[in-house]
Amino acid sequence: MDFKSKLLNDAVEQMSSLPGIGQRSALRLVLHLLDQSEKEVNDFTKAFINLKEHLNFCDKCYHITEQKTCEICRNPSRSDELICVVQDVRDLLAIESTQQFYGKYHVLGGVISPMDGIGPNDIKVNELKERIINEKTTEIILALPATMEGDTTNFYIYRKLQEVKVNITLISRGIGVGNQLEYIDELTLGKSLLDRSIYKTNISN
Amino acid sequence: MDFKSKLLNDAVEQMSSLPGIGQRSALRLVLHLLDQSEKEVNDFTKAFINLKEHLNFCDKCYHITEQKTCEICRNPSRSDELICVVQDVRDLLAIESTQQFYGKYHVLGGVISPMDGIGPNDIKVNELKERIINEKTTEIILALPATMEGDTTNFYIYRKLQEVKVNITLISRGIGVGNQLEYIDELTLGKSLLDRSIYKTNISN
Repeated sequence: MDFKSKLLNDAVEQMSSLPGIGQRSALRLVLHLLDQSEKEVNDFTKAFINLKEHLNFCDKCYHITEQKTCEICRNPSRSDELICVVQDVRDLLAIESTQQFYGKYHVLGGVISPMDGIGPNDIKVNELKERIINEKTTEIILALPATMEGDTTNFYIYRKLQEVKVNITLISRGIGVGNQLEYIDELTLGKSLLDRSIYKTNISN
Repeated sequence: MDFKSKLLNDAVEQMSSLPGIGQRSALRLVLHLLDQSEKEVNDFTKAFINLKEHLNFCDKCYHITEQKTCEICRNPSRSDELICVVQDVRDLLAIESTQQFYGKYHVLGGVISPMDGIGPNDIKVNELKERIINEKTTEIILALPATMEGDTTNFYIYRKLQEVKVNITLISRGIGVGNQLEYIDELTLGKSLLDRSIYKTNISN
């Protein structure tokens, strides 16, 4: 689209460079910004400049942090022996929000995906191995997406850690809490049958 | 959501201040920006700062422009006698993209909507009346949304212009090009029957 204004074209182009924002949405957002006061637009842009300037990646787990090492890694009440391996910061935040995990994290920065040009050297697997050896980790939990790329990465990590003494576990896959069975895809439903757990038993051992 | 980082919280809050962007999407967009180079983030923010600084509203039709009067109003090959009244800049751009209109525009800046606190004095109707009188306009086309608010505004404009000699027309309402009749709501379908036009006739006058 050409809006016959370089400024508007530029702004729409920048806005639509964000993932999932098409040209029409971008125009809507840009015109919304244009309706705001100069101060509000300044605050809007400053937030991203500040973020980029002062936020960096934790030197241990690659989570985002305003310091050298992130808050989670610096927290002495969280166990060093348990590391949860995640794809990205969003997944880390999702797990944090469950309040069910009290170990540390390791953010890979992606999963192996030849289609997207992401190879084993583009993700932080060597750094993970080093950490496990140095920090005497006893268990790593693989919490990568349940996709082909996630599974490939799981297997790559497993192979990479073969000579390291550490338990490797995988988050469970099955039907989601609150889901109706009829709407679940057959692969997930099949997996949830195979991975069934004991509920109660009357048979004495 | 609290991301335990003021910078991240601020950035997500600013991003989710945009219409239609929730907290989850905002986080995704902000983390995308964080992945970009410092130059790219600067370019991103500068586009909006420039837009706000140098773009303003045309002193005649209230379209956006980098000058005092917009390109459309300055174009001598476009008729002054025909003014198309639209709700906002997006609707103007939508009509421009049809390449079917060679008159001028008048951007109201909204439609009357008591629920949203927009009254008759919040939209540029007095300015429209003045223009019609000064520019000797012969026809105005009301191209407002086909909603209750749009209809209210149409009627308000009609009343406001009662003593002015000008033809007031309304863009046609009916079934969209390429639409199947079975999926069209009954109000629209009913209207398209009432507003039918002559296709061909064998009856000689």
